[in-house]
Amino acid sequence: MNKTKFIYQQLLAQFEDYLETQTFNGFPEVLLEPARHIMHIRGKRIRPLLLLTACQAFNGNIAEALGPAGAVEIYHNFSLVHDDIIDKADKRRGQPTVHKVFGLNKAILTGDAMLLHAFFLLGKGPEKILGELLKVFNKATSQVIEGEQYDVDFEVIPEVSEKDYMMMIKYKTSVLLAASVQLGAIIGGASEADKKHIYDFGLNLGLAFQIKDDYLDTYGDGETFGKRIGGDIVQNKKTYLLITALKNTGDSERKRIFELFEEKDEQVKISNMLALYDRLDVKGQTFSKMEELYGKALESLNALSLEEESGKPLLELAEMVYQRKH
Amino acid sequence: MNKTKFIYQQLLAQFEDYLETQTFNGFPEVLLEPARHIMHIRGKRIRPLLLLTACQAFNGNIAEALGPAGAVEIYHNFSLVHDDIIDKADKRRGQPTVHKVFGLNKAILTGDAMLLHAFFLLGKGPEKILGELLKVFNKATSQVIEGEQYDVDFEVIPEVSEKDYMMMIKYKTSVLLAASVQLGAIIGGASEADKKHIYDFGLNLGLAFQIKDDYLDTYGDGETFGKRIGGDIVQNKKTYLLITALKNTGDSERKRIFELFEEKDEQVKISNMLALYDRLDVKGQTFSKMEELYGKALESLNALSLEEESGKPLLELAEMVYQRKH
Repeated sequence: MNKTKFIYQQLLAQFEDYLETQTFNGFPEVLLEPARHIMHIRGKRIRPLLLLTACQAFNGNIAEALGPAGAVEIYHNFSLVHDDIIDKADKRRGQPTVHKVFGLNKAILTGDAMLLHAFFLLGKGPEKILGELLKVFNKATSQVIEGEQYDVDFEVIPEVSEKDYMMMIKYKTSVLLAASVQLGAIIGGASEADKKHIYDFGLNLGLAFQIKDDYLDTYGDGETFGKRIGGDIVQNKKTYLLITALKNTGDSERKRIFELFEEKDEQVKISNMLALYDRLDVKGQTFSKMEELYGKALESLNALSLEEESGKPLLELAEMVYQRKH
Repeated sequence: MNKTKFIYQQLLAQFEDYLETQTFNGFPEVLLEPARHIMHIRGKRIRPLLLLTACQAFNGNIAEALGPAGAVEIYHNFSLVHDDIIDKADKRRGQPTVHKVFGLNKAILTGDAMLLHAFFLLGKGPEKILGELLKVFNKATSQVIEGEQYDVDFEVIPEVSEKDYMMMIKYKTSVLLAASVQLGAIIGGASEADKKHIYDFGLNLGLAFQIKDDYLDTYGDGETFGKRIGGDIVQNKKTYLLITALKNTGDSERKRIFELFEEKDEQVKISNMLALYDRLDVKGQTFSKMEELYGKALESLNALSLEEESGKPLLELAEMVYQRKH
């Protein structure tokens, strides 16, 4: 294991320990079980890791950042609980969702309690910069809800523009990654310029990450975590792939795509859509977009006034987030 | 109009103006309509008024308290939106509820956005005491959710003890009233002792207020705001009245009460339950409890280190909250 990977593994271990022993202190006892249920459907802890790694890069005190790191992770998990209700999703990563196990009422209240608890944990950040932390966290978390509403709205309109799609994923996914690294940098004492650069880094990393999510659903390497290849196509989901396909294509192919939306045989639907995507170079164009956004993220990372050595764990973490295969 | 009433009317006007012009700045555009819908099902603005009147009593700067006053009001309204989903309520004060007008998904997300916005507004409080404001607000708001879960749980158990009932209404209703006056006092620069007294004042006022709610549902003066006399009896709601009836009664009357739970004819059910309540002195005992709690609230109010004149608007507001007829 190289040195930077070691740093990041250490931060993850520290965070998991904090999560297990302290994160739920003060959380309503009566809602602890459903809250732990979602937190244990183990994600990659990307947001708290980004926060802690950014704090570390600026030589910040990790102990002061653990509360805020818990805040971004618990907020993210709150959003999954309410999102799964909205999406009527029975499973997440192969596990039953909170509302499936505990019912609608408890899922709503558990989400509410988790959302509140995120602010409780944020309040454990350094007293003298609480106002700034609160502003950053507030803005991002509010935008996430707005992004979710766009996502819901997009489901019932026939076509979404690339611009609207990019705004939706920016709000729904990227701003929380951006806020996570920015919160870490603020706790680490970063300059105003660096706070801006690191936000842009997180934002573009988040956009690249989200488009990769669409990409992997169609071009990933097989079934993992309960996802299956082509699921988005079956559901007529307005992904970057579909938007790209519709963007630069003639009337007859557009018509063919809208016809495929109605196809009942899933295998026929997937293979025909893939053939269309191939003809329209959807894979190549999507890949280019991801690479462009990831390149922008790295530019912002390079613009930080950090020694190369200090910035390395952030770079390595970005690589890990972006280079995932599933 | 006497002088104290004038103070309180002025604060209400200031708050309504703030609500109309500034409260929703920064709120997600796409969820503004459902949020305004619930905020316009006009309540009495008890919580922000308590906060502002407490701030004023300690000679605080009202301008610094308007954000936090907006926070308690918007939080209260968030809880109504999610509560109405949980209670499957179609109407509130005679108006259709948010989920009824805008659907479940939008109601969930509107509630989430309002909850987040409460913290945004709280963040407008004075920077140097934000940590303290956040702690008070966090604790109370988290307890409200916990209280709601108790309320949901109580629905499916046959009998609730007085102790459990008091805990439920403390969490679900009183702590937010207590936090409201305490936040106002903190912004006004109250001493540690006064912060505690004013919290106890709000807490007991809230308990008296909630028991009065039960009392008025059965002994109030007719149909108002879409409520009707005896609604709680029809629904077998575990009110203070029912708990009191069950508390000190023999086996045969307990049996009679549980039999009445199954009665299908609403008028028969109400009149028979009222006859039982009369025999068991439920009205008198409930009234005594309310008076006892309200007396405690006034004791805490008297314990504040305020000139009589400064404390008067708080006293008058408490009277108004407690002496309501519906």
